Amino acid sequence: MSVAGFKKQFYKASQMVSEKVGGAEGTKLDDDFRDLERKVDVTSKAVVEVISKTSEYLQPNPASRAKLSMLNTMSKIRGQVKNPGYPQAEGLLGECMSKYGRELGEETNFGGALVDVGEAMKRLAEVKDSLDIDVKQNFIDPLQGLCDKDLREIQHHLKKLEGRRLDYDYKKKRQGKIPDEEVRQSLEKFHESKEVAETSMHNLLETDIEQVSQLSSLVESQLQYHRQAVQVLEELSDKLKERMIDAQTRPRREYTPKPKPMFDFGDDSPSNGGYSTSMAPPPSRNSEPSFHLATLSFRNPRLCESLIVWAVSFFCPHHSCGVEMSSVLAQLLV
Amino acid sequence: MSVAGFKKQFYKASQMVSEKVGGAEGTKLDDDFRDLERKVDVTSKAVVEVISKTSEYLQPNPASRAKLSMLNTMSKIRGQVKNPGYPQAEGLLGECMSKYGRELGEETNFGGALVDVGEAMKRLAEVKDSLDIDVKQNFIDPLQGLCDKDLREIQHHLKKLEGRRLDYDYKKKRQGKIPDEEVRQSLEKFHESKEVAETSMHNLLETDIEQVSQLSSLVESQLQYHRQAVQVLEELSDKLKERMIDAQTRPRREYTPKPKPMFDFGDDSPSNGGYSTSMAPPPSRNSEPSFHLATLSFRNPRLCESLIVWAVSFFCPHHSCGVEMSSVLAQLLV
Repeated sequence: MSVAGFKKQFYKASQMVSEKVGGAEGTKLDDDFRDLERKVDVTSKAVVEVISKTSEYLQPNPASRAKLSMLNTMSKIRGQVKNPGYPQAEGLLGECMSKYGRELGEETNFGGALVDVGEAMKRLAEVKDSLDIDVKQNFIDPLQGLCDKDLREIQHHLKKLEGRRLDYDYKKKRQGKIPDEEVRQSLEKFHESKEVAETSMHNLLETDIEQVSQLSSLVESQLQYHRQAVQVLEELSDKLKERMIDAQTRPRREYTPKPKPMFDFGDDSPSNGGYSTSMAPPPSRNSEPSFHLATLSFRNPRLCESLIVWAVSFFCPHHSCGVEMSSVLAQLLV
Repeated sequence: MSVAGFKKQFYKASQMVSEKVGGAEGTKLDDDFRDLERKVDVTSKAVVEVISKTSEYLQPNPASRAKLSMLNTMSKIRGQVKNPGYPQAEGLLGECMSKYGRELGEETNFGGALVDVGEAMKRLAEVKDSLDIDVKQNFIDPLQGLCDKDLREIQHHLKKLEGRRLDYDYKKKRQGKIPDEEVRQSLEKFHESKEVAETSMHNLLETDIEQVSQLSSLVESQLQYHRQAVQVLEELSDKLKERMIDAQTRPRREYTPKPKPMFDFGDDSPSNGGYSTSMAPPPSRNSEPSFHLATLSFRNPRLCESLIVWAVSFFCPHHSCGVEMSSVLAQLLV
């Protein structure tokens, strides 16, 4: 640092101390300037907070936001162009629905409906992805640019102005000890800085229509998102209604209990816990006669024989067989 | 526990150990039963996961979900009927926009637009609140009921069935040592349980149209939400467009630098850092003549006098004054 630069720094620091500690009053800026300053300050705070709250609106889960920003940094380091998006809650719900729907089987009512809704949710997630991208490009990025460029520039001008004011106030206080010309020059520099700061603040506030147009972009993106969502959901709603009408017109299947396996006393392998294979015959009409035959066979062997023949004819309804059988039956009955 | 109950528990535990540790095979249930069981299991998992993922869809921020469930518990303890809803990200964004909009002033473009958008965002939050309530009442609660009642009942039946199977398998293995009648009875109980479990599972799967109707409720709630959002945003979009057209037709105010305070050499209180009050006159068109008068007054007092008159007429454009002044001027010039 040059001697002049060091002296300047010393003046400013000395003046700042006498103001902060000694309570000395510095040169006040006019009300219009302070009003500009206040408005720029509010604008700056508004922009920063709106950016942060919009990110929260797009992805309310802080863990997902943190993960995304990490992934984006990684993909920037790796030189990948396409940034991964937020994991959408709709998408996760959709994945889960589709998965269970397919496991249940699309032929079931619930399974099929789950697949339908799941696919639509995944489409909603895509629509949400577009919203995220649109809002980032047309709202967050321009506002961030305003912060990084215009507002930072104004901050710089204001900081410079404050430095020059301190320098002027220090010299003014020492009027007489310091040459008048030097005091005059420092006042001029102060004014010059004030004008630059004022112009930059005025220009920012005068072009606030740009921020309005960015807000308008946000609203248009949201509008498009909700409109597309309505479209996806309307299709889905129709599909589900059809599915319900179909299901309601289909007759309900009543539960018919399975035939019960019988307790097998002859099972000689008690360590084998396998299901007993000796099943009672199913309680159908056809099997009844043979069942009765089995019970009767012990009482009357003769009757049994003839009944066997009848049973055979019952099982073999072919005409010629039936005739043959009935002649046998006739002989037996004689 | 009675002796019989204790014996039963012992049988079951013993059989379970010989199956799990000794690798003994228990009685297998038929494929149809196992298919039913699998489908019920998938349904149960699907319902549990869909409930959780739907909550995440409604409020992706886990901290907000935790806070809400705590608040709900508190309000239940206090006997408050109305449960507080999720803090909506839209609402928070809206609050922030409205606050800064009012601070900036609604007469500014950005301030006014921020208030417009902020209010609409708050309405979006209300619309989202309705979605939350609808989905909770018509989707999450019925599905939760299915979990808590039907699926829990089926679980109970299946557990009982498993107990009875273990009991039967234990006794079958010890056939001979245990009276046949007892083995037969345990098989019968096993079958009875199987039928009850089978019927309950069958009924659940047969009435899956109810779950479809709940899915349909979810979709209708979403559809209503997005439609209402479109309505809110369409109004807002029109408002913003009007605001932009208004702003663009209004002429832009150029920045005019303020008059600069002059360096006051007569300031005899160097410790007083107050802004010097001796201002240079503003460099406007009207003030120019008086400025020149001041410089000329030293050189030619006569010309000066007449110029003062001219200057007065300049400042007082009233017709009669003008005439009076020009006669005075004429006398002076003669």
